[in-house]
Amino acid sequence: MSKPLNFGIIGYGFMGRAHSNAYRKVNNFFDLPSHPVLKAACARDKDKVKAFADKWGYESVETDWRKLLERKDIDAIDICTPNNTHAEIAIAAAQAGKMILCEKPLAMNGPEGLKMVQAVEKAKVPNIVWYNYRRVPAVTLAKQLVDEGKLGKIFHYRANFLQDWTISADLPQGGAGLWRLDVAAAGSGVTGDLLAHCIDTAIWLNGGIATLSAMTETFIKERKHTLTGKVEKVGIDDACSFFCRFQNGSLGLFESTRYARGHKALYTFEINGEHASIKWDLHDLHRLEYFDHRDQGILRGWRSIHVTDGDHPYMGKWWVPGLQIGYEHSFVHQVADFLEGLGKGQAVQPDFRNAYQTQLVLDAILDSAKNRKWTEVARG
Amino acid sequence: MSKPLNFGIIGYGFMGRAHSNAYRKVNNFFDLPSHPVLKAACARDKDKVKAFADKWGYESVETDWRKLLERKDIDAIDICTPNNTHAEIAIAAAQAGKMILCEKPLAMNGPEGLKMVQAVEKAKVPNIVWYNYRRVPAVTLAKQLVDEGKLGKIFHYRANFLQDWTISADLPQGGAGLWRLDVAAAGSGVTGDLLAHCIDTAIWLNGGIATLSAMTETFIKERKHTLTGKVEKVGIDDACSFFCRFQNGSLGLFESTRYARGHKALYTFEINGEHASIKWDLHDLHRLEYFDHRDQGILRGWRSIHVTDGDHPYMGKWWVPGLQIGYEHSFVHQVADFLEGLGKGQAVQPDFRNAYQTQLVLDAILDSAKNRKWTEVARG
Amino acid sequence: MSKPLNFGIIGYGFMGRAHSNAYRKVNNFFDLPSHPVLKAACARDKDKVKAFADKWGYESVETDWRKLLERKDIDAIDICTPNNTHAEIAIAAAQAGKMILCEKPLAMNGPEGLKMVQAVEKAKVPNIVWYNYRRVPAVTLAKQLVDEGKLGKIFHYRANFLQDWTISADLPQGGAGLWRLDVAAAGSGVTGDLLAHCIDTAIWLNGGIATLSAMTETFIKERKHTLTGKVEKVGIDDACSFFCRFQNGSLGLFESTRYARGHKALYTFEINGEHASIKWDLHDLHRLEYFDHRDQGILRGWRSIHVTDGDHPYMGKWWVPGLQIGYEHSFVHQVADFLEGLGKGQAVQPDFRNAYQTQLVLDAILDSAKNRKWTEVARG
Amino acid sequence: MSKPLNFGIIGYGFMGRAHSNAYRKVNNFFDLPSHPVLKAACARDKDKVKAFADKWGYESVETDWRKLLERKDIDAIDICTPNNTHAEIAIAAAQAGKMILCEKPLAMNGPEGLKMVQAVEKAKVPNIVWYNYRRVPAVTLAKQLVDEGKLGKIFHYRANFLQDWTISADLPQGGAGLWRLDVAAAGSGVTGDLLAHCIDTAIWLNGGIATLSAMTETFIKERKHTLTGKVEKVGIDDACSFFCRFQNGSLGLFESTRYARGHKALYTFEINGEHASIKWDLHDLHRLEYFDHRDQGILRGWRSIHVTDGDHPYMGKWWVPGLQIGYEHSFVHQVADFLEGLGKGQAVQPDFRNAYQTQLVLDAILDSAKNRKWTEVARG
Repeated sequence: MSKPLNFGIIGYGFMGRAHSNAYRKVNNFFDLPSHPVLKAACARDKDKVKAFADKWGYESVETDWRKLLERKDIDAIDICTPNNTHAEIAIAAAQAGKMILCEKPLAMNGPEGLKMVQAVEKAKVPNIVWYNYRRVPAVTLAKQLVDEGKLGKIFHYRANFLQDWTISADLPQGGAGLWRLDVAAAGSGVTGDLLAHCIDTAIWLNGGIATLSAMTETFIKERKHTLTGKVEKVGIDDACSFFCRFQNGSLGLFESTRYARGHKALYTFEINGEHASIKWDLHDLHRLEYFDHRDQGILRGWRSIHVTDGDHPYMGKWWVPGLQIGYEHSFVHQVADFLEGLGKGQAVQPDFRNAYQTQLVLDAILDSAKNRKWTEVARG
Repeated sequence: MSKPLNFGIIGYGFMGRAHSNAYRKVNNFFDLPSHPVLKAACARDKDKVKAFADKWGYESVETDWRKLLERKDIDAIDICTPNNTHAEIAIAAAQAGKMILCEKPLAMNGPEGLKMVQAVEKAKVPNIVWYNYRRVPAVTLAKQLVDEGKLGKIFHYRANFLQDWTISADLPQGGAGLWRLDVAAAGSGVTGDLLAHCIDTAIWLNGGIATLSAMTETFIKERKHTLTGKVEKVGIDDACSFFCRFQNGSLGLFESTRYARGHKALYTFEINGEHASIKWDLHDLHRLEYFDHRDQGILRGWRSIHVTDGDHPYMGKWWVPGLQIGYEHSFVHQVADFLEGLGKGQAVQPDFRNAYQTQLVLDAILDSAKNRKWTEVARG
Repeated sequence: MSKPLNFGIIGYGFMGRAHSNAYRKVNNFFDLPSHPVLKAACARDKDKVKAFADKWGYESVETDWRKLLERKDIDAIDICTPNNTHAEIAIAAAQAGKMILCEKPLAMNGPEGLKMVQAVEKAKVPNIVWYNYRRVPAVTLAKQLVDEGKLGKIFHYRANFLQDWTISADLPQGGAGLWRLDVAAAGSGVTGDLLAHCIDTAIWLNGGIATLSAMTETFIKERKHTLTGKVEKVGIDDACSFFCRFQNGSLGLFESTRYARGHKALYTFEINGEHASIKWDLHDLHRLEYFDHRDQGILRGWRSIHVTDGDHPYMGKWWVPGLQIGYEHSFVHQVADFLEGLGKGQAVQPDFRNAYQTQLVLDAILDSAKNRKWTEVARG
Repeated sequence: MSKPLNFGIIGYGFMGRAHSNAYRKVNNFFDLPSHPVLKAACARDKDKVKAFADKWGYESVETDWRKLLERKDIDAIDICTPNNTHAEIAIAAAQAGKMILCEKPLAMNGPEGLKMVQAVEKAKVPNIVWYNYRRVPAVTLAKQLVDEGKLGKIFHYRANFLQDWTISADLPQGGAGLWRLDVAAAGSGVTGDLLAHCIDTAIWLNGGIATLSAMTETFIKERKHTLTGKVEKVGIDDACSFFCRFQNGSLGLFESTRYARGHKALYTFEINGEHASIKWDLHDLHRLEYFDHRDQGILRGWRSIHVTDGDHPYMGKWWVPGLQIGYEHSFVHQVADFLEGLGKGQAVQPDFRNAYQTQLVLDAILDSAKNRKWTEVARG
């Protein structure tokens, strides 16, 4: 029999829903040593958090996250709040001895992230960061291929994350649903929101980034701020590109923007190795493109692998070959792996320390763009 | 507040899981007048049905479906058993005054289907058949475009459903997971299993089929039967093609097979109209391909619409543009629509009478293939 | 040194241009035992044929094809005229001892085609029919794979040829450029024009067709006739579908139409074998899609082979990997193979006898559609 | 009647063939005021240049290009030799009063390029550089859309040119067919060979590049040199990435490499504008992808335009909709436009001055990569 594990979630936005859905369904599909119990939901607006709790089956609500941390019946804290609140909550949760599942990016910057790492490591509490794309089956398969050495020596890694939802100058910044445009809440723009995903995957698949050069741009300089009602300077970056050298000698090229008309959430990556290459695209998340130079010459071509077979990562738990799962399932997989790890007493990645590496790259990007020069990535 | 609706499910296989998942999550995403309560699961094997009930949260189990029908605390019966049991269970459930949600195809043949229609209509119980693909958002969008007249006069409708999982001669027929290969349980092969989906969608999008000519083939003539342990003649069709004339004058071309190496569940359809055409493919279920001849001449092309925006059918309930849902969500949508319809006292399609139309086409196909001649489809 | 071979071409339309281009450039890219000399162009309209001859470098013109056949300085006759003239010209050319290159389809029907076969075989003149798609490199590669047994036992062959250029009711029939809509000149509609290509390729790749059932339709029943100026009944088929059994036991499914909005010249075929499958599409003619079940399970996928490498059929003669050739090159390849065959004294396919097989299938299609019944294909 | 224009070509390699083919066929398809006469081919190896001349129909041969320039019967000189010889030949040709068609990149560097520009402008001879990709119909259509303002304000331009043919360490550098790997002959690696194409197109479509930051890499440091027989240091760049700001405020991102396993000649570009975006890919050169935000919301999607219609650029001269042309036709179009321009007395782009702009960007790239800093592009 699986053991109950009591969860308290902070925040009821987009991520609050994605995580709650994962908690509710993970045990229907995976055999695990424990199962999440939705004990409490916490947010400042009492009516809204009550409605959220009712919809998802949380047993109780809190309006002060410090109260939530004091509760003895809570085993794990899930942080789904804006970036500028992660550190304070996470450090307090660690001190309260709670397990922590924190949304990405880990922190507003490297130094803040380091304090969070130190807090969880001192408290010895299980911790994980929601870089969920690692657990899209096609991406997990990519990792498996890289680890098996199928690609050989790596020459190139390139990734981008392109959107187009902020092109209108009428879109305000700040407040519910739009805090990602407010530098005070988000810390940066596409760099922390989108490139953070690309970098997490890149480090996971290809190792650390040594040095980089970056360019950022804010196309729309002023926007009305929802909280103040005034037109204010936009502090975030609308677009960011960088190239880099990985520690393994390969070259990297990354780009993110919210001004690429026609792309909704085009997260893609491609790795070119001596023997083989792979490509992936979030818009068609079940397809892994694979090219193997060792195939017979006249029959070489990019294979479009529909990653839905029973022997593909995670897919044996779902339906039958050819039938797709979606975005939300990456969160289910992360919960499944986290619970599995707990049962075995093993840390599951990306934990805070691992996510801190990405934070250091983000710092280097912003520094390089600001100072228009190559920047070494600090070693975590 | 939404009202509880007590469900009893019969069968715990692939469809038992798909439906249970839908019942559990539908109210997390849709605001509905009622919510499913998982009251009872029923199957002959007590241990297995108990394990299934525990996994999914069914409150009780039954091993005799007649017992289930006698229970006063059950409002709706979900039939997830092999095709040859649908009629008996559904007719009894109707007589017991239960709402019925029945897996497809409705029946083993037209006459059996007609009895089922008569039973539910006599009992006046809400009823629906799980032709789930209608509720994939891209398919629902296709329906919307056709209904708006975007395509103009229709010339061609073509669909296929190609798989490759039964090519091995070592695969047995019959028993758990393989009853689809056993003609006694399934009634037919790809015709009732796969073409039934294509036909349901076709009738929905393009109206009734008037007359057709079909060809079937059984590539592997004998297989070991799991239940008897003996090598027995294979009674199902491995492949089936037919062309037809729709009542609206357009031409249809359909094909299904389980011997198309390289295709897992390639359900595709395409409609060619005077002004515009549309295409869809289950392997990339979020994409609707759309061509509009009224676009500026030099800029005409097939548009690959990533059906994930908030104003696309059902998608406003899920995540954000660009992020996908999967196969399972078509079942969630069907439950949502069913509960919505119940609240309004409206029948939701495809009900038994509607699904009976597909059954009549299946009968015509098998008759035409057997007698090698054009066959009129009986009017339902 | 290569020997001169004197060509006389009859007809200066679309095919007249395509063939002339092939004659002019074949020796720039292929090392061959002979080279075409553009000796004479022939057509009824003196001014137009003179302009054509000047543009392409033909040394002389004729306005009567019988005169052309009498000329001693002509070695080979290229027939680029409407279908209803092929037989008379070809039989006379054979009797005059000329080599013959005849446009497709060979004839108006099987009996006519048989007389043509008998004429060239009696006269022992080299002869070939312009089923040019065999010599698109990706199609030739497909043939190579089939012949090597890469696909194993074949289960399915499907092909279609979809266009949309005759949807407008305002389009007239008959006369220059539109004789394909006039049954007196063309013999049939899409059946002889488009399906003929599909059938030629199918027989080449998968062997003879044994028996078939077909459906045809003429969507627009009357059109103004350019030659008479009157609105006349349309005698051609606008659309044709058929399914069939090949002599090797595999099933075939074919469709052609000029009413598929959005498709310009979508000639596609797919072959499903026990071990592997292949697909091709004229709209992206350099891509051969290949699926091999023998690939490692988790890495199976359709390979998109960009058939532009030096070891791909014909491609070593052109540019470098990745750089495409086009439609016209299939004609160049046919001339190259024809001249190569001449040098070796070997017949090159498809010769008249081979093309006669396709003619018999066309006859069976039209017969089946007319009589609404399965029809055996006559053995050639 | 069109007038003869006498051509002398220097070099018989890959480009010698591509240009000769264009000269031979341009007048078969285009109505032009003049037609090329293949007067002389020139190269140092007498036997080889003789064989080339015979194959393509050049009337005479020369082994010294200075002799060729002295000939009165030559109107135009086509320079198809390695990069390090362009300047000397072009300047002498200008002084001799010849029209000049020069292969790309124009020169080894900016200062050399400037001398060439000055030479042709002083001599007032018509001149053009073979940046052929501008005249692929889909690319020309892209230009037309940009010029019409269809895209609105531009935010992003990205391009790459990926190949994989030099991954093997066994490949030597230098000599026939491999001079592109020899820095003495080529000046740079992928920067001048491949990025030069990307930059020419970018400037044409999006205007000048103001400032950039670049990174280059040479993966294989030493290769045997074919001319010396010794293992020598490799001086070229194997890979190059850069980001930049265009003069119009948009951001650019470019990459080229010969180490991208699986890509033969993947030249792609994408432009993101306020209203619309376009994408193109050399591997499927007839497809222009177009996204227009002004389309009805639920029907927005990338349109795959098969640029083969009669009203698409250049395509009315070739076959019928759906039928493709290839790589070689971009050269035919360049010759057609050049001859058309000559007849009108108008300069046709890209002329030397225009190509000099690209040269200045190449200089800035190499400087930036070497010095690891942002570099201003010199104004030409």
